[in-house]
Amino acid sequence: MNGHPPATAGQAVHHYPVRIYYEDSDAGGVVYHANYLRYAERARTEAMREAGIPHAEMVQQHGLMFVVRRVKVEYLRPARVDDTLAVTTEPLRIGGASVLLRQRVLRGTQALAVLELQLACVAVADGRAARLPDRWRLVLERLVVAGANGKDKQAERSDDGQIRGA
Amino acid sequence: MNGHPPATAGQAVHHYPVRIYYEDSDAGGVVYHANYLRYAERARTEAMREAGIPHAEMVQQHGLMFVVRRVKVEYLRPARVDDTLAVTTEPLRIGGASVLLRQRVLRGTQALAVLELQLACVAVADGRAARLPDRWRLVLERLVVAGANGKDKQAERSDDGQIRGA
Amino acid sequence: MNGHPPATAGQAVHHYPVRIYYEDSDAGGVVYHANYLRYAERARTEAMREAGIPHAEMVQQHGLMFVVRRVKVEYLRPARVDDTLAVTTEPLRIGGASVLLRQRVLRGTQALAVLELQLACVAVADGRAARLPDRWRLVLERLVVAGANGKDKQAERSDDGQIRGA
Amino acid sequence: MNGHPPATAGQAVHHYPVRIYYEDSDAGGVVYHANYLRYAERARTEAMREAGIPHAEMVQQHGLMFVVRRVKVEYLRPARVDDTLAVTTEPLRIGGASVLLRQRVLRGTQALAVLELQLACVAVADGRAARLPDRWRLVLERLVVAGANGKDKQAERSDDGQIRGA
Repeated sequence: MNGHPPATAGQAVHHYPVRIYYEDSDAGGVVYHANYLRYAERARTEAMREAGIPHAEMVQQHGLMFVVRRVKVEYLRPARVDDTLAVTTEPLRIGGASVLLRQRVLRGTQALAVLELQLACVAVADGRAARLPDRWRLVLERLVVAGANGKDKQAERSDDGQIRGA
Repeated sequence: MNGHPPATAGQAVHHYPVRIYYEDSDAGGVVYHANYLRYAERARTEAMREAGIPHAEMVQQHGLMFVVRRVKVEYLRPARVDDTLAVTTEPLRIGGASVLLRQRVLRGTQALAVLELQLACVAVADGRAARLPDRWRLVLERLVVAGANGKDKQAERSDDGQIRGA
Repeated sequence: MNGHPPATAGQAVHHYPVRIYYEDSDAGGVVYHANYLRYAERARTEAMREAGIPHAEMVQQHGLMFVVRRVKVEYLRPARVDDTLAVTTEPLRIGGASVLLRQRVLRGTQALAVLELQLACVAVADGRAARLPDRWRLVLERLVVAGANGKDKQAERSDDGQIRGA
Repeated sequence: MNGHPPATAGQAVHHYPVRIYYEDSDAGGVVYHANYLRYAERARTEAMREAGIPHAEMVQQHGLMFVVRRVKVEYLRPARVDDTLAVTTEPLRIGGASVLLRQRVLRGTQALAVLELQLACVAVADGRAARLPDRWRLVLERLVVAGANGKDKQAERSDDGQIRGA
């Protein structure tokens, strides 16, 4: 409770900052809806990197990568040029060869969009599903436990059935 | 069954062609996942235009536009540079101020991605939900009836509960 | 010279149509400036394909591809959502391992943007400059002759010094 | 002049960091060429903001904005996924209604791309050229002086004729 919160009791959900520029907006004056998927990808890449699973290691040491199998986005409020947003990334469930994530795009404490993604672990060589290496699984499962003890527990439950496992 | 299929019994679902270029691909050698939302937007803009609801009329005469409230994408197979794809657009359900659509991204007869989108009709001025003008509703409902009699009937039913109405 | 129409009789400059959608625009209500490079790439890919140098052959048979070394864009007038544009592609000069192209983005007869690009022919394997295969050179040189006899002759001359050869 | 370091003693050129993600790359395994224009726009938006000319003030207080009139990009080396780049922004010349900028995209000390842009100051209402407000001109001219005394002096001179003033 002092200084940084302990990881085992509600470890902070990963936050990634995103500043909105003209490139992100459309003629409606708001952020183009497909771009939320780009911010989410940036955010989970950094979340994985900070958790000790950098993209380069995945590809070079294991010949594996994550691909998006399913995504569901709920758009709640528009974002605009000059906004400073944050994207949170939380693993919800770790399968043998897949990961279910929830990501939120926030402006301050307000959610602008909520994403649920199912990622599949595949071989770079042929795109076939592949088991998650044990170390990755451990890293990701620890994040799930942490998240489940955090403030987003209720939300996780109510959303839980919306994207079914691989 | 001869020549073009009759419109009242399985009216042709709208097809929009998309050629894939380098701009669409990523370092994995396949189309970047967020780009399917861009193709879907192009396709439904043209589907609306051909159905007699061009974007310009929506904005200028009615001060209304459609915005995406929810989208769900299932990625089945990757697309690659030089592929020629088609995007189909089918209204599934017309609400008072919203439309539920299904769009498929096809390479030949193979589905690469299936999208379900809920669009809300909103006022351009303030972004508030607004009733669909009667003429639009009629146009869109006719497309739903047509689609329900077509070859995609089974698929529609099995997917029907995945995105709940507004 | 037999079979193919003679190049010397003012062969039509290649035109590629582009429809503008929301994805292309920004909050200023106009097409985002970087997107003109995307349209130009689509257009020259199709110009090459129609001239008999499809991208797939380049990569698979020769292990070669074109990369952009320099580009200069002059923005004259903005494009907007729903516009139908055309992109023209004209080779200006064919070097040993490079091609100088001019591309124009037009709305009707009005130029919205003029691009000059220097492309380098490089090996896919290591990115090193590589000589253009003889057949490609012949195809491209015929297009230069054709263009020089066409209606854009004056424009070509006056712009000619702006991007210096490789 | 107090507090902030004096501009005349080789004030640091503005650096903006850019991390490269999958969204930025193409099937060639490198950053898609048009994306450098996006990074440059992000960087100069932040350079302006830090210099005291935030975008919001420009639009809301003065009804003015900058648009790109000309851009020239020289591509020197490719960038790849996971690279951390920096974009530098240096005003080269301040005109009555325009600004000539040079921007460099660097990986460490290596330049990957060099851009020269001519921006025009225009009225948001009608897109017409408009004089730079005096305060902006002063801010930008101070940056030019600073840059000319810094380490990039030679490079500036040799490039100076490549994009002619408005």
